[in-house]
Amino acid sequence: MLRALELARTPGVPLGPNPRVGCVILGPDGREVAEGFHRGAGTPHAEAAALHEAGELARGATAVVTLEPCNHTGRTPPCASALAAAGIARVVFAQRDTNPVATGGSGTLRSAGVDVAAGLREPEAREVNAAWTFAVEHGRPFVTWKFATTLDGRSAAADGTSRWVSSLASRRDTHRLRGACDVMLVGTNTVAVDDPELTVRDDLGEPVPHQPLRVVMGERDLPADRRILNDRAPSLHLRTRDPGTALEELFARDRQHVFLEGGPTLAAAFLEAGLVDEVVAYVAPMVLGSGRSAVADLGVGTIGDARRFEVTDVTVLPHVPGDTEEPTVHQTDVRITMRPQRTRGD
Amino acid sequence: MLRALELARTPGVPLGPNPRVGCVILGPDGREVAEGFHRGAGTPHAEAAALHEAGELARGATAVVTLEPCNHTGRTPPCASALAAAGIARVVFAQRDTNPVATGGSGTLRSAGVDVAAGLREPEAREVNAAWTFAVEHGRPFVTWKFATTLDGRSAAADGTSRWVSSLASRRDTHRLRGACDVMLVGTNTVAVDDPELTVRDDLGEPVPHQPLRVVMGERDLPADRRILNDRAPSLHLRTRDPGTALEELFARDRQHVFLEGGPTLAAAFLEAGLVDEVVAYVAPMVLGSGRSAVADLGVGTIGDARRFEVTDVTVLPHVPGDTEEPTVHQTDVRITMRPQRTRGD
Repeated sequence: MLRALELARTPGVPLGPNPRVGCVILGPDGREVAEGFHRGAGTPHAEAAALHEAGELARGATAVVTLEPCNHTGRTPPCASALAAAGIARVVFAQRDTNPVATGGSGTLRSAGVDVAAGLREPEAREVNAAWTFAVEHGRPFVTWKFATTLDGRSAAADGTSRWVSSLASRRDTHRLRGACDVMLVGTNTVAVDDPELTVRDDLGEPVPHQPLRVVMGERDLPADRRILNDRAPSLHLRTRDPGTALEELFARDRQHVFLEGGPTLAAAFLEAGLVDEVVAYVAPMVLGSGRSAVADLGVGTIGDARRFEVTDVTVLPHVPGDTEEPTVHQTDVRITMRPQRTRGD
Repeated sequence: MLRALELARTPGVPLGPNPRVGCVILGPDGREVAEGFHRGAGTPHAEAAALHEAGELARGATAVVTLEPCNHTGRTPPCASALAAAGIARVVFAQRDTNPVATGGSGTLRSAGVDVAAGLREPEAREVNAAWTFAVEHGRPFVTWKFATTLDGRSAAADGTSRWVSSLASRRDTHRLRGACDVMLVGTNTVAVDDPELTVRDDLGEPVPHQPLRVVMGERDLPADRRILNDRAPSLHLRTRDPGTALEELFARDRQHVFLEGGPTLAAAFLEAGLVDEVVAYVAPMVLGSGRSAVADLGVGTIGDARRFEVTDVTVLPHVPGDTEEPTVHQTDVRITMRPQRTRGD
């Protein structure tokens, strides 16, 4: 199973709506006879790839898979039937597949006389596809809200300037996190005010090959010259101001992980709707004393009603050369990653 | 010298206006014959303590001291003359004493025929008395500005409530830092609004034996019932709103390290005057969306004029039990310690 998990995590597998899966086929003597992993939508599933490699050696063998074999005919035939047809005697899998369109593989395998064991290293397997797992189980994408702030909670100075609150190291780090999501979401106001391109760029500033969907939400029309509408990546305008409706739309489009980069108003709307699953704050070591607040009014009147988060990681992002024209200024940001606190009332 | 530094750092030596000093006396064979350290104002200096222990063995011996022996008759006689009179043949010291009332010890020693070597492990010695060294060299106390903030830069909610933005772990940590200073400073407004007692308490909430001076600055009168005026520690009201004047007053009273805990207006005044030497920010993982800003208007209009700091330490303060009545809420604060950025313009 450890090898299967390693296969599932193969770097460079394009992100897409499908989970990452690894499969190892073991002969009756326990030795590996074949392996496979899923390379993205439209390509063979991990089990099919491994069966193909195993050929006749699959007969009487054990298939070790990171996810319950699917029961679904999509762009590829159901893996459960394929495993049974190939003569596999036993299937050991980690994570149960509760995806309504694919679930039921265990039943199909058992009916075909295949021995099935479930749950081995399930936590690690869920982690490999954390956003996919969340989306399948909650019927909506996982939402990471990212914001950059000064120590005194400002995202821009009094004159609206905000380049840069975050250091170059933080901006590079943000691009890395963007690239792990399949949607970047902002509001029409951010597009009007900041005109971000919202592409994922590497450390040299070049766009990476696989770009997440750029989504603007809000009822206002977008001027055609906005950079978010350029041809460097796909874009979508969702004509709603309701976070729930937007997530529903995105889930229907097979999106699993939203990187929320909108301004203070959009962030407040998601927070108020309880639709923030992870918070990534880049705290810059400076104070402005005035300017745009990083978070808009949330209707919180008293300290007991503050939106509280549980810290899951704190990372210091040291200064990288070339950050400013002023060589004596060294900016070290702090990235704080959090998830919402669950209190008894929730 | 390492032993002398260790002696200088002896825990529990009461804080006071004097520097912490350690002294080791080595016989002609290089073996230690005596040692001493300064226990606080009014008690013998380190050299005197070591000479007393050495007795006749001081003759022809080497004295290793962390600070240049003083040349000053205060509550104790000058150490330079005492060393010479005791027959010490050689003095090796770390930090030069530029304090106008004590400087000149090396000259006195050399005139008396004592061999003098200076500067051995000077950086470590300066660190032992960092605030004292700063105060002597700058003619004013070192200022540590401490503030607590939510992720969105609020120090209180819309209704004024602020108990607690910081976690119990942060509050305990603050008491530890307070205890290392000799002044805690707030403005009349903080006294009027929050009525803090401003004492240093241990982890059980009990006041520690040695309390820093509690100082309120501002022109307004203080109601006599304010907790800062109680008898648990000394208090002082400085009738000025000018940070420079306040620091001058405190320096004249032999104070070397001010812990600035005032509200946003006082903090802004010190920042604008360039009189903040260290910043300690406790960042709490919560957002309020409204309420009192942690820092008042600084007259900064554009991002390029932000007050920038260099991060010297980032410490995660994990939740400690008993912090809230809600056992499922775990608050982990992040303490960011900084010093002002020196840019070319400074």
